[in-house]
Amino acid sequence: MKTLILCSLAVWLGAQAAASSAEAKVVLVIHGGAASEKEKMKLTAESEKRYREGLERAVRAGYAVFKKGGSSLDMVEASIKLMEDDPDFNAGRGAVFTSAGKNELDASIMEGRHLKAGAVASVTIVKNPISAARAVLEKSKHVLLVSEGANSFAKGIGLETVDPSYFHTEERWKEHEELLEEEKRQKPRANNDKGFSVPSRGEWSTVGAVALDATGTIAAGTSTGGMAEKRWGRVGDSPIIGAGTYADNEACGVSATGHGEYFIRYAAAHDIVALMKYKGLSVEAAADEVVNKKLKAASGSGGVIALDRKGRVTAAFNCEGLFRAHVTETGKVTVKLFRE
Amino acid sequence: MKTLILCSLAVWLGAQAAASSAEAKVVLVIHGGAASEKEKMKLTAESEKRYREGLERAVRAGYAVFKKGGSSLDMVEASIKLMEDDPDFNAGRGAVFTSAGKNELDASIMEGRHLKAGAVASVTIVKNPISAARAVLEKSKHVLLVSEGANSFAKGIGLETVDPSYFHTEERWKEHEELLEEEKRQKPRANNDKGFSVPSRGEWSTVGAVALDATGTIAAGTSTGGMAEKRWGRVGDSPIIGAGTYADNEACGVSATGHGEYFIRYAAAHDIVALMKYKGLSVEAAADEVVNKKLKAASGSGGVIALDRKGRVTAAFNCEGLFRAHVTETGKVTVKLFRE
Repeated sequence: MKTLILCSLAVWLGAQAAASSAEAKVVLVIHGGAASEKEKMKLTAESEKRYREGLERAVRAGYAVFKKGGSSLDMVEASIKLMEDDPDFNAGRGAVFTSAGKNELDASIMEGRHLKAGAVASVTIVKNPISAARAVLEKSKHVLLVSEGANSFAKGIGLETVDPSYFHTEERWKEHEELLEEEKRQKPRANNDKGFSVPSRGEWSTVGAVALDATGTIAAGTSTGGMAEKRWGRVGDSPIIGAGTYADNEACGVSATGHGEYFIRYAAAHDIVALMKYKGLSVEAAADEVVNKKLKAASGSGGVIALDRKGRVTAAFNCEGLFRAHVTETGKVTVKLFRE
Repeated sequence: MKTLILCSLAVWLGAQAAASSAEAKVVLVIHGGAASEKEKMKLTAESEKRYREGLERAVRAGYAVFKKGGSSLDMVEASIKLMEDDPDFNAGRGAVFTSAGKNELDASIMEGRHLKAGAVASVTIVKNPISAARAVLEKSKHVLLVSEGANSFAKGIGLETVDPSYFHTEERWKEHEELLEEEKRQKPRANNDKGFSVPSRGEWSTVGAVALDATGTIAAGTSTGGMAEKRWGRVGDSPIIGAGTYADNEACGVSATGHGEYFIRYAAAHDIVALMKYKGLSVEAAADEVVNKKLKAASGSGGVIALDRKGRVTAAFNCEGLFRAHVTETGKVTVKLFRE
């Protein structure tokens, strides 16, 4: 009798899972970064509306590509470009400033069929860093190009370049000046630059996208201005394949946001893929294990979006929340802020 | 009866494994890079002797630290510093040149107890890039610093800096000029910079080390001048945590060498750790799976050294060979070139 009940339950659960995945195969999920308590308090009704609209525009742009039969790389690039152009996100225009008052941008992209990848770090003149990352994937023999070399590669192959002032927005500059003031006040403490303390500002509005195209190929991408007030050419997890971005058709695609150093140390994106492939975890369980167990135990704040080959989507975060949106193959768009 | 035989076999196998690991617990393994067919042909009796001596010196330097009760991070740093200072290896002094005729150095280091890591990419004035990577681990909040920022960080905390000409050796410069000539002759082909072709030169004498200290903590590190004639600020796998270097006390430490782009795309070092943790593979089987199956199938040439928490060592490579050496806790040194 017990066995019968258990079996029935298993069949019922299986049917539910199949039904829900058949009903709601997601083809694209995007994020507009992790959110902190501070960010939540700052949010007005007006800015909340703007974020929702920005996420919806970006996810619809990627979906339009899907409808035209575009590849998952096309979908990821299209969505991320819109968020890079949107000054509300910390990527492309509207990126945070380094401690030297500059905008240094990082991005990466990967496809899961052949595990090809491209990334750029610390670029300063490329309008859309995600397109530069894609060009590295498609038009170079390399995976990661940094700084002046990456600028020069992007320019050389004809990508749109801009004056560095293009990335400057007044709002981010005001934040930068406030942070400089704060740093001056805290100088004795700032000199002791040890440990792995969590940055005090919610500057993690990194953007990312994971897509699944009609051929079953998963792609993932991430783009960011990095950590506010970063120094010494600091590079976070966003341009690091395996940390901020990974895609493998045998498991899922992942894009991360948060305190990048932890995502690098835990090889977070690749670890989610590995837990699915080697331990048989579902995409939800794998993302939860990495974000809510491993990273949380280490005080590594942030989150991920992930999409598996069957179109099952998950968002896992151990911080105040994640700005995100997804769209199903039938065009149903869902936008969520914070813990929604 | 069958069960009894199987059990006896299992007990016997277990005893053998315990005996062999008790006899030969390795505390440090180092590599001086993957070797190509060309390199093998170039090797004279004199240069072979020099390589063997260089590897032995480096492994003994790390062992001396072990004997004094030093940490695995100390052991890794000590061994790699010697190889960086040795002009025979493509790391520190004697690094290959970029296409612009410069030396741009990358290094990373990680410890497996708290998964702390540090790395630098494209540094040009730091005498020992591995020490800069360690300083990032211990004295900054970051994991990866690149280019001028990394130079400035290293200088700021008082690491030894040198004029970029320090890294220049006549032998590497001659190779650089030959490669420039070759490139000129092949110009029409060189313009078509697509695909993932394997570089034609055996410039992969990246160095690395993995150590296990008395507390059971594993550390791993890698240092390189990168790919000869690299352009556009190309960064390979050596400074990428998860690709060229990883350490996790629950599994093993790994340092890689070879065609770095593949090691990044396959998150090679972390994948070996994941196969051990999630699939229960031994360090030998995990390294073999990644290097001789996955990377080989993708034409990703190179190899790794790995050392697990029980002091079991392995070297896996799908190329002509690997220059390497290891030392047991009793001080027995083994040096191997190519396929020995």
